Amino acid sequence: MSTRKPVKIIDTTLRDGSHAVHHQFSAEDITRICKGLEAGGVYAAEVSHGAGIGGSTLQFGRARLSDRDMLTTAAAALKNTKLAVLLVPGLGTMEDLKVAKECGVEIVRIAVHCTEIDVAIQHVKLAKEIGLEVCAFFMMTHMISADELLGYMKEAESYGVDYIYMADSAGAMVPEDIAVRVKLLKKELNVPIGLHCHNNLGLAIGNSVVGYEAGLDFIDATLQGLGPGSGNTPTEPLVAVLNKMKVDSGCNLYALMDTGDKYVKPLIQHTIQVTNQSLILGYAGIYSSFYQKALDIAEEYDLDPRDIFVRLGDLKVIGGQEDMILDIAYKMAQERKAAS
Amino acid sequence: MSTRKPVKIIDTTLRDGSHAVHHQFSAEDITRICKGLEAGGVYAAEVSHGAGIGGSTLQFGRARLSDRDMLTTAAAALKNTKLAVLLVPGLGTMEDLKVAKECGVEIVRIAVHCTEIDVAIQHVKLAKEIGLEVCAFFMMTHMISADELLGYMKEAESYGVDYIYMADSAGAMVPEDIAVRVKLLKKELNVPIGLHCHNNLGLAIGNSVVGYEAGLDFIDATLQGLGPGSGNTPTEPLVAVLNKMKVDSGCNLYALMDTGDKYVKPLIQHTIQVTNQSLILGYAGIYSSFYQKALDIAEEYDLDPRDIFVRLGDLKVIGGQEDMILDIAYKMAQERKAAS
Repeated sequence: MSTRKPVKIIDTTLRDGSHAVHHQFSAEDITRICKGLEAGGVYAAEVSHGAGIGGSTLQFGRARLSDRDMLTTAAAALKNTKLAVLLVPGLGTMEDLKVAKECGVEIVRIAVHCTEIDVAIQHVKLAKEIGLEVCAFFMMTHMISADELLGYMKEAESYGVDYIYMADSAGAMVPEDIAVRVKLLKKELNVPIGLHCHNNLGLAIGNSVVGYEAGLDFIDATLQGLGPGSGNTPTEPLVAVLNKMKVDSGCNLYALMDTGDKYVKPLIQHTIQVTNQSLILGYAGIYSSFYQKALDIAEEYDLDPRDIFVRLGDLKVIGGQEDMILDIAYKMAQERKAAS
Repeated sequence: MSTRKPVKIIDTTLRDGSHAVHHQFSAEDITRICKGLEAGGVYAAEVSHGAGIGGSTLQFGRARLSDRDMLTTAAAALKNTKLAVLLVPGLGTMEDLKVAKECGVEIVRIAVHCTEIDVAIQHVKLAKEIGLEVCAFFMMTHMISADELLGYMKEAESYGVDYIYMADSAGAMVPEDIAVRVKLLKKELNVPIGLHCHNNLGLAIGNSVVGYEAGLDFIDATLQGLGPGSGNTPTEPLVAVLNKMKVDSGCNLYALMDTGDKYVKPLIQHTIQVTNQSLILGYAGIYSSFYQKALDIAEEYDLDPRDIFVRLGDLKVIGGQEDMILDIAYKMAQERKAAS
């Protein structure tokens, strides 16, 4: 197609997209979508509960199907496209990983908060032992500097991972954030680098392209942008844009468009778009788990919830720290009182 | 705010956004939105029929209000934010321009197909004579090379325009297309440069940021992305992204978010999002006026309409050439027959 560097697409419709359907993909959905991804020529299809294998819990939402059922169904529909799973250490176990391998999984992406790669070392080793392709998947990477990120990624590289992903989990990065990080990682690391974007600020495609120009080897996407909130990088326009740039992604645009239109679009329960809600979360750089509680507390304290979100972002809160909303609101109300 | 170069936002919710509401903005809509744009600190608010002043016709759709009513209403609601109109020579007349001036308009953007700036010379001269700020607004600029575009823009500059806009009218450009053009224009022209994007490929925000980094002075946007098809660059996330980049746009993000949410969102009749329809139009680089007819003819000839769109794009068709669809379909059917 051209002499430009090719890029591989990992489609995560059936994993990160699962959040948008409350993890209710049926076996028929998985078969149809996997067949479409195979025809669409993506490098890998990631399939599992939205929170990864072992993620089907009361806290994260029960999936319709067991990991085993999802993965054997997907494996039966895939041939050249590799089957991938996500695993969050603590949620997914070593045992889950073995089951995944038995079901035909070829790639595991071990997902950690950007500063906590050390929790992944045992999972990486086991995955390598049982013959999986292993990716270290760093979440919320907007929270630390490019240099810090590089440090943690070097550690991942020392564990023997095959490639490393940077996820903009809150959709909080602007193009220059992406460019600076990807350039540094490409310069200092030996393994291939991937990027996973969310579209909170409407930048998922733009950031992916800027990341490609900075040297990316892999890009994540989902059909129709299926994903939490404003969704992920949508596969169809991403491939269209790469085609226009004469970058070989190995993909068949029309097959992906058809699959998204026929089998993913009908499953969408809320419109996947940039809203004021997604925008403020991306602007502040925090997870959506903070959203409703902050609205409620803002009303109680007569504050603009946006001010709470921005303050939370400045404090670099992560999932699990939702209790801080009340402290912050109380403090802001006190500050207002003192100022008046 | 920072030492980075500032950028001015021209909001065209009440002009290009008008297409999405079939030109049915009421006086109340105009007042509320203009007040919100004033509070939001945008440089200018463009108000007129979607096809510009004089655009309210049977062919382009009748507006609810006359130009005079729209403009006097808007002028009454604006103070620091300038009132702008679009004028397409042939549709808008010299007389319309005088009316606009009487109503309090300060800026006219004279819109031409990218190769046809010569039709604008008289309008530019009159606009300058009556004391308007004049912008030459080049449409469908993906169709010609950066060098050709520069040539036509130099001509516009020689007419004495105050600034020049490049519009990606079909949402067909990728970031490198923008960067190459803006860098060249900034190097070779003396007047400020603006960019108007459509979101067909999900790149409106990304392209606007890349354009800023290449030197843009103005960026167009609409609240909630209101506009034809997949819409325009949405003002709210654009300003959020500029804030994150510490670029001063003079805007108040929350005021814009509130205005979009309260007064624009309720007017939206179709969801403003990237769809397979917007995608293929952006991919092929053609106007939406080709869409339905190509679908119908594709069915008649048993062709994939996407192949027709791409062929039309290769031929660089523009609005008014919709009759070519039939010729192309006939030819493609003949080619298929010969190949079988």
